[in-house]
Formats: sequence, C-alpha cells, structure tokens
Amino acid sequence: MPPEVQAAAGRPMINHRGPEFMAIMQEVMEGLRWAYQTQNEVLMLTASGTGGLEAAICNLISPGDRVLAGVIGVFGDRFASIAETYGAQVTRITSPHGQPLDLSAIGATLDSPQPYRAILVTYNETSTGVLNDLATISQMVRNLPEERRPLLLVDAISALGAANLPTDAWECDVVVSGSQKAWAVPPGMAFVSVSPRAWEAMEQARSPRFYFDLRRARAVAPRGQTPWTPAVSIALAMQASLRLLRAEGLEAVFARHQRVAQFTRDGLRRLGLQLLVADERYASPAVTAVRAPDGVDPDRLRARLRDEYQIDLAGGQGPLKGRIFRIAHLGFVTEEDIQPVLDALTECL
Amino acid sequence: MPPEVQAAAGRPMINHRGPEFMAIMQEVMEGLRWAYQTQNEVLMLTASGTGGLEAAICNLISPGDRVLAGVIGVFGDRFASIAETYGAQVTRITSPHGQPLDLSAIGATLDSPQPYRAILVTYNETSTGVLNDLATISQMVRNLPEERRPLLLVDAISALGAANLPTDAWECDVVVSGSQKAWAVPPGMAFVSVSPRAWEAMEQARSPRFYFDLRRARAVAPRGQTPWTPAVSIALAMQASLRLLRAEGLEAVFARHQRVAQFTRDGLRRLGLQLLVADERYASPAVTAVRAPDGVDPDRLRARLRDEYQIDLAGGQGPLKGRIFRIAHLGFVTEEDIQPVLDALTECL
Repeated sequence: MPPEVQAAAGRPMINHRGPEFMAIMQEVMEGLRWAYQTQNEVLMLTASGTGGLEAAICNLISPGDRVLAGVIGVFGDRFASIAETYGAQVTRITSPHGQPLDLSAIGATLDSPQPYRAILVTYNETSTGVLNDLATISQMVRNLPEERRPLLLVDAISALGAANLPTDAWECDVVVSGSQKAWAVPPGMAFVSVSPRAWEAMEQARSPRFYFDLRRARAVAPRGQTPWTPAVSIALAMQASLRLLRAEGLEAVFARHQRVAQFTRDGLRRLGLQLLVADERYASPAVTAVRAPDGVDPDRLRARLRDEYQIDLAGGQGPLKGRIFRIAHLGFVTEEDIQPVLDALTECL
Repeated sequence: MPPEVQAAAGRPMINHRGPEFMAIMQEVMEGLRWAYQTQNEVLMLTASGTGGLEAAICNLISPGDRVLAGVIGVFGDRFASIAETYGAQVTRITSPHGQPLDLSAIGATLDSPQPYRAILVTYNETSTGVLNDLATISQMVRNLPEERRPLLLVDAISALGAANLPTDAWECDVVVSGSQKAWAVPPGMAFVSVSPRAWEAMEQARSPRFYFDLRRARAVAPRGQTPWTPAVSIALAMQASLRLLRAEGLEAVFARHQRVAQFTRDGLRRLGLQLLVADERYASPAVTAVRAPDGVDPDRLRARLRDEYQIDLAGGQGPLKGRIFRIAHLGFVTEEDIQPVLDALTECL
C-alpha cells in the first residue's frame, strides 16, 4: 500500500450514514466509473471478490439457465461452480494451464443452436498469470443477434486497474473487481458494474438473494449509501488510492503495469527460469507464474524467501500446487520492488 | 476505536495465506469463542452483519420451511425478510416499538401443532434499544421435545460483547455478531457461531449458497484460513480489540456496559427526556433511544450536534424516522464520552 492508502485505512471511524461519508462514497463510485471506463453504475459490496462473483450470478442466473464458462484455472472454475450452485447448466470450455481461452472453441459454442443466458470470462486468471483476450471474446458476443446474445459477466478481480478494460466499449454486462488487487487497498470490498441490459435481465431472474441484491444497492447508491453497513476503512483507503491513480492517469497506470511485468519476465528468463505462460501476448500484467526448476520445491523456496528476505511470493493453487511459484506485480509495485525479488531468487537458486 | 485497535487497522498488509496471519486468525477465533462463551466453531465472514444473518438463513432454511420470527424493530424485520427471500413460511410475532418480544405469544406459537424449523430472535434490537429476554426464550426452546424443537438463530450483531450471551448454556444454534459493534473495530466482518445441531441440519438444507457456505469456512478454519480472501485489516483490529477485552474480563465488560447505559438513561431523564423503552428491565446496554420532545425535530437536533459539537447520534429508522434519536454506548464508550453528549443536549434543547 502507498503511505497515503495505508494512512486512510487507519483513520478514525466516521458515521457511515453521515454527510462526510456520503461524499466520500460518491467520490469513490465516480472514481470507479472512471477506472472501469463506464457510464454504468459501479456498486460497492462489503465482501471479497468471490462475493462479487456470487452477486453477478445470483442476480442474473436462474435454475436451468444455460451458461458458458471459460475455465483456464482456479478462478474460472470458481466462477463456473458458483453458477452451478445456483442451478445453471454450465458448459465449461477449458485450456491447458498457462494458456488462454481458445477463441475458436468459444466462437463455435456460442454459435450452437440453443442460446446461452450468460458467458463467464476470467479476464486475468491469477492462478496461472494468463490475460484472456477479452476484447475478441466481447466482439464475438456483440456479433450475435440480440435474441441469442448472452450476458457477458467478467471476473476482473485481479485485472481492473492493471489491464485495459473499457467496460462500455466492450459492452461488458457485469464486471467484478476487488479492493485488494490493483487498487492496493486492504481486502474487504468488491466492486460490480452493471449494464442496462443486465438491470433488465435481473427483473426476470429467480434465484434468492438479499445481501448481494444489486437492486437494493442501486436504490441507495445515488445518495452515497449502501443498503448494509459498508466497510468504512476500505472505502476511505479506496478514496486515497483512486486519487493517486487519477493523478497518474489510466494510460500511464496500464503502461507501468506492462513495463513492470516485462521487467519481471525478462529478469526471470535471464535467471534461466521457465515461465508458465509461454506466449507473451497472453502474459498477465498483474502476476507472473514461474515453473519450479527440476529438483526445486517451490514451497520450500518461498519459505526461504519469506524467512530470509521478507519477500512473500504466492504458491501454486489446485493442480499447480508444488509445481510453480508466482510473483505479484500489480497495484503500485515498481521495478524497485521487483529487483530485490530477482536478486533473492538468484542467491537462493 | 481504542488507539491500539485503530493502529492495528492501519498496519501494512500481510499475506493472508502466510503463517503470521494464520496465527492471528487462530487467536481471533479463540478470542471469539471466549466472548461467545462457546465450544462451537465461530467462523469469520468478510461481510457486514446482514451478511452473517443471510449465512444463518441460507445454510439452514429451505423453501417451504416454517420459521417463527420475533420482530420488534427494523433488524428483526430484516432477519424475517431474509428467511422469506429464501422461501420460508414466516410467522412474525411483533411488539409495539420500544417493547420486547411477548414471551407468552412466543410460547403459545411454539406450542402449535406443526413444528417450526427455526426461530429467529434479535437479542438487541438496535432500532429501538430493546434487549429481548433471550434467556427465557432459549429456555422455552429447550423445553420442547427434540422432534419439535426449532433451531434457535440469534441476531446478536449489536449485543455480543455488550450483553451477556452464554451461547452454549442457552443452546443457541447460530449466533451472529459484527466487527463494528461492541468489538469497536471498523465494519467489514461478521462472526457466526454454529452448534453441532446446526451443522447436522445444514446437511439437509437445500438453499443455494457459495460465498456464505459455512461448511467451506469450517473446513479451513482449523488452519487459521478462510475459503475466500478475508478482510485482513479488520482481522488485525479484532486481534487488538479482543486482547483489550480479555484483559478487562467478560464480567467487567458487561458491568461497564450496564453502568454506562444506566448513566446515559439517568442523565437523559434528568433532562426531562422520554426514553422509548419505558421498562428498565429491557433497556439495551448498547444503545438508548430517546423520543423527540414536542416541537423538536430530532434530525435537525442531530445535525446541530454534529456540526457544532462533533457529536454523532443516530436517527430513527423505518417508522421511527423523525420521531427519535439514539445514543450508542457500546464498545469502549465510557461515562467520559457520554457526559459531553448530555451537556450538548442540555445546551441545544
């Protein structure tokens, strides 16, 4: 966290129904619309990102709905599982670890005679460090005739603010992000944008929802309010983060992420390490996954980096557990943060 | 917030999957069991209190279930509404504003030929400042034969840590609290205790749930983990708060709440103000609701206290809007915090 963000997270509490907080919430929601590049409402839920994904499903998917899910890792699988929990008939399109969604498979499936209610896409799959080609997928969805066109629901939890995501230009119906990723704020809030098409579909959806009912959030948002007590300290930190990001400018923020990600990948390759994502076009601007070299236990390597260098890397998840380690470089991370990681890896390996 | 709690909320972030955070979570969960006076698991959800109430419902109530709801204000009504959202057949037992649940009505309804799946009780109804007689209600539930005995689901969001609630002695099946109430921590986490009876009932329940699925939370809790990214800064602040509370002792904490609440009520009565709760036996240790005197707009009074005295009082909610104001005295509030409120009221009125 930048010092301004950390200081905001530790401020004294204020009345979440008072005028000071209302003005803060309105500023944060306006900032979110800026970062989302949207005119849609962006609602603030007190929950982690997974709660935001559930909000996307429970507000729009009814039992029996056909849902197409792009699954290239743990988080795509989670999004699909939430839809199944709500009784959807989910068709999964999968790719091998480290590869993006197969666009021709997506296209062929979208063309099937029976239309889909929704397509679920993980923009940045954190478990593998792959950035899917959401621009092309969204174009495929837009090319379908209106009556066969699914809602495009995007898990952008680890992408928003790290990778370009023009919500309106790509006509994304729901886009979910989370406070602890590129916003560099403590975890505790999820942000959910909703298109006019999604608001309309919501009226027909029949799954039970209360806490995550987006219509309730929409009703009070113009007053800078949330239906339930919001995570005040997270909102204060979001205000500080968005001010920093707006001062930097969206293009500059994306360029910085690209630059730091490239710096990370180049440094790792110079160490002779193999990256999980072979094709640079799909390499995530937010996180890089590294294959453990032969004879190296990545979790022992991580423990050593943590204990001896105070460097915290992530491990593999699901089937990649014990096979990779991951370096986060989103938020306000710079080359100055990454260089010590490369140095420590050089020493340890 | 006490300074220790505020400082903890503003600490740098740590890896929520690392050993340092696991130890903190285990300490907090152990502290929660102490405060809940229970051997049950107390799970930590990243959500506000309403999310905890929804967790109680969606994990235990199935469409068509008969549910008895004690409703004496806005929060009791909310709990009942969540059950209805999940398709329960809800019987509401209501009382006039400022009065507790009618024990004979509860008893008579519990004795009806068809058993109830669950009874919902708001221990402390924040919107009116009434503390229900949960001891007696829980005894009524325990007196029923096992096959007719409903699950006792308790909204203790504003009660836990302010009023005595021996979860195990009263055999409460689910008890929900929230970080921003007596814990004096920023909002963002709800805590949910679950009895063995409730775990068993959960296996039969058929409502969809994912983010709030308590079985997922239980599976990873022994390792100090949560299934989804937790609100780290809130957990850090909870650790600081629980250390203060344990040093003070539970009996002393309750006695302090009683003393400060009595001090507040006595001071208000000396000003000639009428309290919404006439019967001292049911006066909340957490919050006191005051009827606006004739000719006084309570919301204008609150605006003046806020702008001129930096004192934030709560207004009326629902049908009590514009008719009352409320003074919170839970958490680490003392007489030294209340006296300036009484002084300011004296001047303004």
